[in-house]
Amino acid sequence: MTVSHVQERNRYDNRPVISDIGEIREGQTGQLPAVTGPASMVLFGITGDLSRKKLLPAIYDLEHAGQLSPDFDLVGFARDTSNLETLLRESVAAHARTPFDPQVWARLKQRIHFHQGTFEDSSAFEALGSLLAQLDLLRGKPANYVFYLSIPPSAFETVCAGLSGADLHRQEHGWRRVVVEKPFGHDLASARALGDALEQAFEPSSIYRIDHYLGKETVQNILALRFANGMFEPLWNNQHIDHVQITMAESVGVEGRAGYYDGIGAARDVIQNHLLQLLALITMEEPLSFDADSIAAEKIKVLSAARLIGPLDQTTARGQYGAGIRDGVVLPGLAHERGFPADSTTETFAALTVGVETPRWAGVPFYIRTGKRLARRTTEIAVAFAGPTRGAFLARTVPVENLLVLRVQPDDGIELHIGAKRPGGGMNIGPVTLDLDFRSVFAAAPAAYERLICDVLRDDATLFPRRAEIELSWQLIDPVLEFWASDAQPDSYESGSAGPDAAAEMLGRSGRVWRPL
Amino acid sequence: MTVSHVQERNRYDNRPVISDIGEIREGQTGQLPAVTGPASMVLFGITGDLSRKKLLPAIYDLEHAGQLSPDFDLVGFARDTSNLETLLRESVAAHARTPFDPQVWARLKQRIHFHQGTFEDSSAFEALGSLLAQLDLLRGKPANYVFYLSIPPSAFETVCAGLSGADLHRQEHGWRRVVVEKPFGHDLASARALGDALEQAFEPSSIYRIDHYLGKETVQNILALRFANGMFEPLWNNQHIDHVQITMAESVGVEGRAGYYDGIGAARDVIQNHLLQLLALITMEEPLSFDADSIAAEKIKVLSAARLIGPLDQTTARGQYGAGIRDGVVLPGLAHERGFPADSTTETFAALTVGVETPRWAGVPFYIRTGKRLARRTTEIAVAFAGPTRGAFLARTVPVENLLVLRVQPDDGIELHIGAKRPGGGMNIGPVTLDLDFRSVFAAAPAAYERLICDVLRDDATLFPRRAEIELSWQLIDPVLEFWASDAQPDSYESGSAGPDAAAEMLGRSGRVWRPL
Repeated sequence: MTVSHVQERNRYDNRPVISDIGEIREGQTGQLPAVTGPASMVLFGITGDLSRKKLLPAIYDLEHAGQLSPDFDLVGFARDTSNLETLLRESVAAHARTPFDPQVWARLKQRIHFHQGTFEDSSAFEALGSLLAQLDLLRGKPANYVFYLSIPPSAFETVCAGLSGADLHRQEHGWRRVVVEKPFGHDLASARALGDALEQAFEPSSIYRIDHYLGKETVQNILALRFANGMFEPLWNNQHIDHVQITMAESVGVEGRAGYYDGIGAARDVIQNHLLQLLALITMEEPLSFDADSIAAEKIKVLSAARLIGPLDQTTARGQYGAGIRDGVVLPGLAHERGFPADSTTETFAALTVGVETPRWAGVPFYIRTGKRLARRTTEIAVAFAGPTRGAFLARTVPVENLLVLRVQPDDGIELHIGAKRPGGGMNIGPVTLDLDFRSVFAAAPAAYERLICDVLRDDATLFPRRAEIELSWQLIDPVLEFWASDAQPDSYESGSAGPDAAAEMLGRSGRVWRPL
Repeated sequence: MTVSHVQERNRYDNRPVISDIGEIREGQTGQLPAVTGPASMVLFGITGDLSRKKLLPAIYDLEHAGQLSPDFDLVGFARDTSNLETLLRESVAAHARTPFDPQVWARLKQRIHFHQGTFEDSSAFEALGSLLAQLDLLRGKPANYVFYLSIPPSAFETVCAGLSGADLHRQEHGWRRVVVEKPFGHDLASARALGDALEQAFEPSSIYRIDHYLGKETVQNILALRFANGMFEPLWNNQHIDHVQITMAESVGVEGRAGYYDGIGAARDVIQNHLLQLLALITMEEPLSFDADSIAAEKIKVLSAARLIGPLDQTTARGQYGAGIRDGVVLPGLAHERGFPADSTTETFAALTVGVETPRWAGVPFYIRTGKRLARRTTEIAVAFAGPTRGAFLARTVPVENLLVLRVQPDDGIELHIGAKRPGGGMNIGPVTLDLDFRSVFAAAPAAYERLICDVLRDDATLFPRRAEIELSWQLIDPVLEFWASDAQPDSYESGSAGPDAAAEMLGRSGRVWRPL
């Protein structure tokens, strides 16, 4: 990998020059670096939804691309290990990004081991220790363990206790890492308790909190776009940005996840983690380097400066989807979904207004919304530039949108919305869009979980939120959750719509509108 | 046409808000305003190339679109008027933008009149006066005349004298306008003499100098993009722009135009007018309004501030095309083109470095180039933003291009070149392009000459350079022409190449490169 420094300076004005237009830094494209060291990954919750749909397929895809070390072993810890192999093969065949290849599966299968036990049974952890030691012995290499907790947070403490009881947490003849999945608590207090429980067993630097959004290419691209291009950073402040909209809209409903979702709701499920992480990446200052500590420090700084803009009855909105019709099919409201009480107060739509009280951002509202059963599935960040504030055009024309839209899903890309002259006489301005679909220019990107699993094995914590980030995010939204709890029901909105009226009113008060879904 | 004012203000920070995202100003799309008043246009040089290929087809297209008044008449002044009707019909059928419709032609033909005469014959002008008076009488409306001089500049003075001799220049019972085509002189002194000759016969405000480039949609769009969008203006200065490249590349050679081109060359033919006009539009300050006087004042201001950056042997380049092969066909060098002496010193490629000494632009080089027989036909303005000058990316990566490209021809559009993260591990940056083809979003644009003829008839001088602009442009390039005249032959370059080596060296000295053709 070539590292170049720009030293040439412009003779005319002595500023540094772009001397290699078109040239780019060498490096692998569309590929993750190979993991070379030995490691055993113990997967708790191997039969769960996430394991079957995301984790195992990602591990298969990594093996398919030759990125896993031959010294990588996977241990599935489960209450019932019968028929597990069939279940895993079917999951991989159904959900992997790359085609199912029996030879690749055979290679991987040899390194998958099943371990029967329950989280409460300390002897099961002792036996796990023996199995891991046996694998170490066979490899004759250092004993590196990843404990991946793809389990409900209520079980975190029990599993951590089991691991420390069997002395598996101690860095001895190798490293120990633990991976946890959200939810990281349901408010600040519970998040702190969870953090304490994890840190009782593991070093803070060994704890990887997964927010799979941070593994998505467009999300990682936020920093690249902001800091590798000269044209965005000068605009990236309260003088030139009017407001920012961060949207994660789902078209699906709760899809049978009542056990998890009831009492949690949209703000805890999506805003506290994914969307506030996007906020941090959009607003953070440029780090001195792109290592994990430097980036975390900048994210923590802006999250510390994030404030709710009130009054909350005007600057937030929540809703619960009612019935609706899509493609001729009647969709039930949440109150009629299996597992939900008819008087559930769980919100399926949440929107808030956040400010970031730094010199760069003071005065710029960040509108954040998420919801289920909305008109379309989309995740995007729309940066609305301030219109021209003076001069001829403002007086003569209705302002047009001038937006930079970073599309996160379903189609990774960037859009720039500007006003251009319509053909013909006069100076009539119409909206036009410059568009870029990342998939059209770059090789296929690895899935978020491939990237993140790779990073855990390689000890690269850049894309994993720190404990402080999690807690600052809860600190920000706790008052909203309390405010909503004091109220009666969330507003109802039609399935397939853009959400409750309150969301539109929330922006309407300052004369703004949400991007159409 | 609705004129709206933005009065709403943002409650959060009291800045004006973009309240109508997506809404646009009402107005005709892809159409010019209809010309309602009566007028007779006298076309001198009706049998010439420009008349046949551009002017008459444009007049036909305007008629086709219903934009000409029924009280519009065209008078063709020619030495030989026999068979003129057939010639005109064939020209229109071959070159009009819209399909040939015999009914439209019949409607137009009724209003085309031929007038036989020579420029030197004063009685021919007297007779022209009678014809025009007769047309006025038939219409029973004011006597408005446009004199369109599509003739060599050497004939301007004679025709102006003929017109004033017959008292046709005097504003009496109507208006008088005169349209002239480039070249507006071959240096500052001759341009001044030409201006004096025109102003002896006509009011300065009645003289329309045609630079058909200014009728092109993308050229008009420069001001719309700059001033209707909040995001470009903050970047549009020497702090954020590294340099600008203005290119007009032709793939054709002199195409039998030796009589005109020999001794003129690329700088006079293209840079003095088209390209310096583009420079003015790119660099001018925002006018208080978009009327002709306000825009002209701003263009004159930046053209007054334009300076050659020397030493000229390093900051300019000229060349003459030699032989070459394209698509298997051998192309002759200029010295072997019909009508050119073997020792012709006429340059077919010219490049210069210009600075604009205003607070906004001081220090930014504008590289201007034009040439014939180059690799590709393209006219574009490329604004290269300064790279990030500090921070992590500069140290870790080779800078990528960050350019805004305004494509003028052949495909009107805008491109934004930026660096984005390549998929996979690490922060490897690769070049990507956001693209917009105007033709894909807007209705077909009127041709430049349609727009300009319409503007003359409607007395809208916005798109016509003033005498001061012409003279300032000559004042800028005269020293280059003198410098080149003191030298021997221009450098030779291969037909179908990107021009002479000196052009690449000219940018190479400051570590920059031309955009590939």
